[in-house]
Amino acid sequence: MQELLCRLVAECRDECSSGGVASYIPELAKADPRMLGVSVLTTERTFFQGGDASFPFTMQSISKLISLALAIEELGEDCVFERVGMDPTADPFNSIMRLEMVRPHRPQNPLINAGALVILSLLPYRDGKTRIAAVLAWAGRLLGNNAIAVHEPTYVSEKDTSDRNRSLAFFLRSVGSLKGDVEDLLDTYFRQCSMSVTTKELAFLGMVLALDGIDPFSGERLLRRSTARVLRALMATCGLYDGSGEFAVRVGIPAKSGVGGGIVAAVPGRMGIGVFGPALDGKGNSVGGMAVLEHLSARGNLRVL
Amino acid sequence: MQELLCRLVAECRDECSSGGVASYIPELAKADPRMLGVSVLTTERTFFQGGDASFPFTMQSISKLISLALAIEELGEDCVFERVGMDPTADPFNSIMRLEMVRPHRPQNPLINAGALVILSLLPYRDGKTRIAAVLAWAGRLLGNNAIAVHEPTYVSEKDTSDRNRSLAFFLRSVGSLKGDVEDLLDTYFRQCSMSVTTKELAFLGMVLALDGIDPFSGERLLRRSTARVLRALMATCGLYDGSGEFAVRVGIPAKSGVGGGIVAAVPGRMGIGVFGPALDGKGNSVGGMAVLEHLSARGNLRVL
Amino acid sequence: MQELLCRLVAECRDECSSGGVASYIPELAKADPRMLGVSVLTTERTFFQGGDASFPFTMQSISKLISLALAIEELGEDCVFERVGMDPTADPFNSIMRLEMVRPHRPQNPLINAGALVILSLLPYRDGKTRIAAVLAWAGRLLGNNAIAVHEPTYVSEKDTSDRNRSLAFFLRSVGSLKGDVEDLLDTYFRQCSMSVTTKELAFLGMVLALDGIDPFSGERLLRRSTARVLRALMATCGLYDGSGEFAVRVGIPAKSGVGGGIVAAVPGRMGIGVFGPALDGKGNSVGGMAVLEHLSARGNLRVL
Amino acid sequence: MQELLCRLVAECRDECSSGGVASYIPELAKADPRMLGVSVLTTERTFFQGGDASFPFTMQSISKLISLALAIEELGEDCVFERVGMDPTADPFNSIMRLEMVRPHRPQNPLINAGALVILSLLPYRDGKTRIAAVLAWAGRLLGNNAIAVHEPTYVSEKDTSDRNRSLAFFLRSVGSLKGDVEDLLDTYFRQCSMSVTTKELAFLGMVLALDGIDPFSGERLLRRSTARVLRALMATCGLYDGSGEFAVRVGIPAKSGVGGGIVAAVPGRMGIGVFGPALDGKGNSVGGMAVLEHLSARGNLRVL
Repeated sequence: MQELLCRLVAECRDECSSGGVASYIPELAKADPRMLGVSVLTTERTFFQGGDASFPFTMQSISKLISLALAIEELGEDCVFERVGMDPTADPFNSIMRLEMVRPHRPQNPLINAGALVILSLLPYRDGKTRIAAVLAWAGRLLGNNAIAVHEPTYVSEKDTSDRNRSLAFFLRSVGSLKGDVEDLLDTYFRQCSMSVTTKELAFLGMVLALDGIDPFSGERLLRRSTARVLRALMATCGLYDGSGEFAVRVGIPAKSGVGGGIVAAVPGRMGIGVFGPALDGKGNSVGGMAVLEHLSARGNLRVL
Repeated sequence: MQELLCRLVAECRDECSSGGVASYIPELAKADPRMLGVSVLTTERTFFQGGDASFPFTMQSISKLISLALAIEELGEDCVFERVGMDPTADPFNSIMRLEMVRPHRPQNPLINAGALVILSLLPYRDGKTRIAAVLAWAGRLLGNNAIAVHEPTYVSEKDTSDRNRSLAFFLRSVGSLKGDVEDLLDTYFRQCSMSVTTKELAFLGMVLALDGIDPFSGERLLRRSTARVLRALMATCGLYDGSGEFAVRVGIPAKSGVGGGIVAAVPGRMGIGVFGPALDGKGNSVGGMAVLEHLSARGNLRVL
Repeated sequence: MQELLCRLVAECRDECSSGGVASYIPELAKADPRMLGVSVLTTERTFFQGGDASFPFTMQSISKLISLALAIEELGEDCVFERVGMDPTADPFNSIMRLEMVRPHRPQNPLINAGALVILSLLPYRDGKTRIAAVLAWAGRLLGNNAIAVHEPTYVSEKDTSDRNRSLAFFLRSVGSLKGDVEDLLDTYFRQCSMSVTTKELAFLGMVLALDGIDPFSGERLLRRSTARVLRALMATCGLYDGSGEFAVRVGIPAKSGVGGGIVAAVPGRMGIGVFGPALDGKGNSVGGMAVLEHLSARGNLRVL
Repeated sequence: MQELLCRLVAECRDECSSGGVASYIPELAKADPRMLGVSVLTTERTFFQGGDASFPFTMQSISKLISLALAIEELGEDCVFERVGMDPTADPFNSIMRLEMVRPHRPQNPLINAGALVILSLLPYRDGKTRIAAVLAWAGRLLGNNAIAVHEPTYVSEKDTSDRNRSLAFFLRSVGSLKGDVEDLLDTYFRQCSMSVTTKELAFLGMVLALDGIDPFSGERLLRRSTARVLRALMATCGLYDGSGEFAVRVGIPAKSGVGGGIVAAVPGRMGIGVFGPALDGKGNSVGGMAVLEHLSARGNLRVL
């Protein structure tokens, strides 16, 4: 497996050149587009790695899974999905249009920015400080690493270039879809997006979801079975933004991407995978990362769809 | 299994009352909303059935799978998906808006009406007569029943109430997304939608897709492996119209619905399922059929997501 | 005045080169983009002309005024504006989007294509033949020329390239905004658009509207005062498609354009103007015609806004 | 005239009951929906008044004319209309949709909120304090009252309920349509909207515009002729939000409304009119105010369209 991963990274590295690093957040624009890495965690409780598997990057949209899991566990599915839909959309992740057009003004799903903001606003914490502390604690559990921290330069960079998300948040509050202090909420959102990980942590998270919520090493239950399933189903239909359908065709595994270049994938019952490659396609998904997942899925006969 | 299916139908029949039969096609409006049936085909090559499993109904949108399979087999994936996208959408199945708004004017996926019309137009037949003959022949193969026929009263009824689809087709031709005689194309479309089946045929189709394109009885290859996978992936992300995400959460199996009340589901490697219940929810999906699939998935541990 | 008009045409002819003739209707694409003409009818009952004032062209959207006047006179304002709005829109003249998006599915105003189709469908005639006969008779009255005829080659050309209007009409019927035989309706629509005129007839029409509905020569009342005012108000706010605001700023006179290159303008109480120049801007308005009107308005102190 | 105005107010007061006061800004919600007043300024330099003509209210959207006039005078038409369009729209005044949908991301016109925010951002002042001082100074000139002041309770109320405008502003900055400090800009915007006037000041403003920019009493030129005409043309096509077309039909005079209940109207060369009635229709226009203007236009033969 180790060897396979190294070979896959070598083969796919060239594909990265068709993409570009995220340009709208200056800190992300500094990334090296040739980087590519992968980690795999199997039921034998062994991590296999290839390429830049240990290079740190920020979770970005992948962090939406953490706060969504936290919200469902704390508040229950019904409460959460009364405020946010469950269905995929063809609109880009930061779109505001459908919110104005369709009533009720409910974000289409929790994995687009509007949905993630509503999810964060539902978390029952008294201020941003306790809220991000709770998110970090949950991130530590679900990523198998208690030392998860916010990457300050990225957080600062996001905060400085956040007009679109700020617009989304104020819109949501203007239509009653979101309550509370917007700046405080955005602060949590940018910190959450800026949590630093490597592919290893993503592989751990993928394996927790693959095992219906069980810690792959300790056997402890970290999430209710139903929560893990909701997350996998949303990943399968909405996990790669408006490119989710094509990913399902090419790879066929539930996954969630972030514009930091990471993708987490969960092969139910079998495997957790984390990939990293900061060169993105036009929809915000890692070009090299998707290529690695496609080949890994094909050779390992991993597809579930 | 037989017993389980009967019990499921009995339990779910009451849920049908929250839905209503399709009202925009007079022939469909005649259906009895209390009907509910299910057929299952397993790897043991045995059909199990419950409720109104043998009651005939029209395929409607499920037929989009037949012509899509035919188009991919005849023309190749690249040719097909150059003209039609692969990604889900939050718009209703008959929406025209995004086609005007987004360039290129390409239908979002082959399972919304606009996409299905483009797919049909790509089929390399010289007129409507040979085109529908080819679709019927493929339907016979993929449904395991060479006697598949068009239900004339439904076909006539669809044709008489087809303004929205006619509008879609002329729009697509006006932007160059579709070529050829529109009335001839719509004629094939309405005939295809009006193909009459029972849950048994849907279970057969589901099993063909579950087996990566193999005939479950003869072992003959009916579809390329890749074609079966493309269909399953599209079913998982776009199969229940703009309700595909919620279905993935609740049921977790690739499936395709039709406003005739049918749903076909494919559990990879394990099972084909056909359900029928003409009472629909607001998005056009069978209320009772989804309930049966949800319980069957849970009790049989069938979910793949 | 005669001399002024000749000078204006000479000065403005060069501006035509920034536009292009309508390309989507082959017959219109044959026009010479350098042509430019103008006719003016004043309260002294004298026609003044300059340039290609007597060159025949088809009315296109200007004909919407004829059938709208007929509908209001026959059915009353209330009946008409229950089915079609009165307000301008930023959408292009053939847009279908807002019809799907906004409820009730009522065209925004009678001067976009969707609105004009609904207006025609309201006319109480038993078939297309009597309907177009009535429109032609009204055109004769309002244009001061009983010999108004359909330009057959343009009519045939429009009919052959009419997918977008056909799509609009079927959409309108699918949402209940329009009743009756669509092909029959479109036939009237294309014939109406293809009525052949010169700038002289447009100047006459402009003067009828300028005089609140009075025939400038005979003094006979051709339209109710209120009908003439409704038309002028709609021309002022919606007469140049999605370029109506800029025209109001530059010219400040109620007017209506057509993609055949004509524009009719009505200076209340004072003057009727017809211009013709087939080179169009991106919104479908005559580049040279607008230039002539702008200069004429400035030098003659004609603006009312 | 005095008598006519009193009679008109008495006749129209009952129509107010079909409207409701603006509810989204608490301070505006306190207004008495039965109030109705009118002031008229004629070429004889005499003010005529009826009803609650001297009751103070806030300008709201009418203030957009002040800052637009200032921007055109300071920067020139070309500079202003490079950044904001001139054409009417069917979208509500606070809509964000078209900005996302259409490129370039330019507000449709300066009289919708998005356009007004861009206009304010163009004003070449170093901070909010000098910017609002300049706006107030211009308001004093154009309203004929150097004591124009911000109504503090309304300003505070607007600021507290401003999520939608904040969303618009951040969106505009995210797409590069607006530069500078958003909170500072919004502060000017809310102060501008909260300038307190009576119908007398609106009648004065209307007369300045009617006289092509001349102070009706001193004869001093306050605006360039062309600026006054641009404002009148925009009022005629976009002045009553998405109800501008119907107002043109019913009244036929350039006018601008505000959700405070005021409307200013300019009858070119003849008259300035200010009306006030806080009961609004669904589009945000004063019900009683429009009724007064409709009757006044009809009886005084004032319409220019």
